[in-house]
Amino acid sequence: MTDRAINLRDKLARFSEHWSPRVVAEMNDYQFKLAKLKGEFVWHAHADTDEVFIVLQGALTLEFRDRSVPLVAGEMYVVRKGEEHRPVAAEECSVMLVEPRGVVNTGDAGGARTAPDDVWV
Amino acid sequence: MTDRAINLRDKLARFSEHWSPRVVAEMNDYQFKLAKLKGEFVWHAHADTDEVFIVLQGALTLEFRDRSVPLVAGEMYVVRKGEEHRPVAAEECSVMLVEPRGVVNTGDAGGARTAPDDVWV
Repeated sequence: MTDRAINLRDKLARFSEHWSPRVVAEMNDYQFKLAKLKGEFVWHAHADTDEVFIVLQGALTLEFRDRSVPLVAGEMYVVRKGEEHRPVAAEECSVMLVEPRGVVNTGDAGGARTAPDDVWV
Repeated sequence: MTDRAINLRDKLARFSEHWSPRVVAEMNDYQFKLAKLKGEFVWHAHADTDEVFIVLQGALTLEFRDRSVPLVAGEMYVVRKGEEHRPVAAEECSVMLVEPRGVVNTGDAGGARTAPDDVWV
């Protein structure tokens, strides 16, 4: 627990890896994570939870099997529990993710792009 | 559920009342709310939950009984469950709050500044 505000820009400056979420805060059993995204991620779903994307910098498209949702900085979207999705970013973007502690970035898909869980920055 | 991104700036433009949170999204049993704050709020605590403040525009100070935490746009803070706090903003600021559905703005304090719960924008 800190007595200082958490500055999102400062936290983002402390890592450069893509698709590797870093935890910046916990609220109850939820975590707030920052991530830098570029390119196409894997199709996946989170069977047990919704997932929030808030775009901080740049632009992101959330692809679903039946639609695509474009997002720019200052916009957010809630991916519903169990819904297959794939984040795609032509250029690097920075996002905040909100989800329960323990959620893995690749959800049910697993594979090489699964990032370590619970890494703080 | 929408197929469009939630644009925080557009949502903020749709209300002007201070200390009157508006829900913009739900994730599981949590809500994301926008609020405009100006002046001093009442001292209160939320006995059952942490509460997240993310400053979107302007500046805010979270006063606690033993310290003050200044926040500017792009910064966040987690108020811990049961901890007495009082938000203070010399000039109008806009924040996003994240907390479980059903949390009332004045917590255990109640009184005239209690805003209606679950009002969406």
